[in-house]
Amino acid sequence: MDSVRVHAPATVSNVVCGFDCLGFALSEPYDELTVSMIREPEIRIRHTDDFGLPTDPARNVAGVALRAMLDHAGEGSGFEVKITKNIKPGSGIGSSSASSCGAVVAANELLGGRYSKSELVGFAMAGEKLASGARHADNVAPSIFGGFTLVRSVDPIDIVSLEFPMLFATVLHPQIEIKTSEARAILPAQVPLASAVRQWSNLGSLVAALARGDLELLARSMEDLIVEPVRSSLIPKFGEVKGAALEAGALGGGISGSGPSMFFLSGSRETAEEVENGIRRVYETTGLDFLTHVSAISADGVSRVS
Amino acid sequence: MDSVRVHAPATVSNVVCGFDCLGFALSEPYDELTVSMIREPEIRIRHTDDFGLPTDPARNVAGVALRAMLDHAGEGSGFEVKITKNIKPGSGIGSSSASSCGAVVAANELLGGRYSKSELVGFAMAGEKLASGARHADNVAPSIFGGFTLVRSVDPIDIVSLEFPMLFATVLHPQIEIKTSEARAILPAQVPLASAVRQWSNLGSLVAALARGDLELLARSMEDLIVEPVRSSLIPKFGEVKGAALEAGALGGGISGSGPSMFFLSGSRETAEEVENGIRRVYETTGLDFLTHVSAISADGVSRVS
Repeated sequence: MDSVRVHAPATVSNVVCGFDCLGFALSEPYDELTVSMIREPEIRIRHTDDFGLPTDPARNVAGVALRAMLDHAGEGSGFEVKITKNIKPGSGIGSSSASSCGAVVAANELLGGRYSKSELVGFAMAGEKLASGARHADNVAPSIFGGFTLVRSVDPIDIVSLEFPMLFATVLHPQIEIKTSEARAILPAQVPLASAVRQWSNLGSLVAALARGDLELLARSMEDLIVEPVRSSLIPKFGEVKGAALEAGALGGGISGSGPSMFFLSGSRETAEEVENGIRRVYETTGLDFLTHVSAISADGVSRVS
Repeated sequence: MDSVRVHAPATVSNVVCGFDCLGFALSEPYDELTVSMIREPEIRIRHTDDFGLPTDPARNVAGVALRAMLDHAGEGSGFEVKITKNIKPGSGIGSSSASSCGAVVAANELLGGRYSKSELVGFAMAGEKLASGARHADNVAPSIFGGFTLVRSVDPIDIVSLEFPMLFATVLHPQIEIKTSEARAILPAQVPLASAVRQWSNLGSLVAALARGDLELLARSMEDLIVEPVRSSLIPKFGEVKGAALEAGALGGGISGSGPSMFFLSGSRETAEEVENGIRRVYETTGLDFLTHVSAISADGVSRVS
């Protein structure tokens, strides 16, 4: 086996009351990566898309993730990676994570599957550190495990793969730039204990709602008192979009990652498409470029296609 | 049917990372209540124990809870309540809650079961307000629903009854007084966002661990960064007791309610008894009076016995 091809899905992190811990994987969009083993002890990156991302492996998230893996493995060989990105960089739906997770999952196959999913999360987090400055697993966990994941801890890595019912996501990606650093900077360092209690009550009940497939409870639990009130100001028409989504039947939703994308969950594809229509009507009035996606929540993370 | 007799169990609230929302019901100790319908539109309280609790229905938690119920029901009749308390008042394992919950559950039977469990929680909360000054449901929810409960919201009342595996609790009740008001006063009004995130990650994963019966994950999730660090100072030898409990095989534990009781969870009755032995050895060195209890977590809350 000389080369492995994978699809690496987009992911939503910071799911409403689950800031910095709860995420899920979409079925689409996904990046396509082909990783080949090469004899030279180096990493080569090749892009077949037009995003102009770095090909220097030390400045590319997939390169950095593979370097962490190779350093750990102590292999004398190297990897060549061909990346076709379909997830726009900077969209807030785990574009960088898809690259680094796709790369390490494929490379792990080439190494005989010696690493566990949790270990792969660790390598992929090196890519996230390059992309955002923080060693976080909010997107890499769902990208590698699939489904809904809860990052209980990153040091040590402790990922909880959650039970969940069939759900669909509608994503709106306004084509504006929000720097992760800026989105971080506006967060309060301290929060009222009463708000924190309400947030963790909601997160606990959201996890219970997913486990039992109780969509009404899921809807009631999707409330964010801490992050959304400040970060929503960075996204034009946030309130109107959310209103239109709920009006169209969405269970709830909010900011994906640190934005600018927003996401909404629905119990059926039909509803998710109605939510898409409702959102589009709002965003067409803004004059901004935007994309929308409708996708099932995928039980699979990065998956091999050949 | 003129009278109904119930057992009203002790409950543990503020379960580690689930401050102000997560609680569970014990099988024992429990209070015994007999509620009878009387023709006079009044509430009469009679105690058969030696705790000297008020018999004035306006100053008794069961009386206040029944008053809330009668006012809502608009019945012309009244209730007589005989209470035999086995749960010591001020123990921090839901003594007041047992009285008010036992009373409203029994009275509801006499009224033909017209109220839902959530509505009964609402009436019993009137008793909690008398006892502690706050309309909270942390103990009344597990007392009425049984098992593990998560109070997502008290206004409106939204109680989530959680799936959970077989578990046993060891309770240590040091016979000292901690005023709820004092335990409240030392809590910080604001908490670091990073600690809050860790707390809700732990609570989310604790709920997932209960749902799938994953005791190792449950153990890892039982961490409280916010309340225990300040309130544990109110309980003599807190750290040593916890150390002895974990040493004896407990999965985790902490302060029950606002103290002074502590509790620890174990996967078997044998382990819970070893935890009890370990704790007793620590507490025997203090010279303080104390009680210990070992009990299964009960799937039932207040239950009718005749």
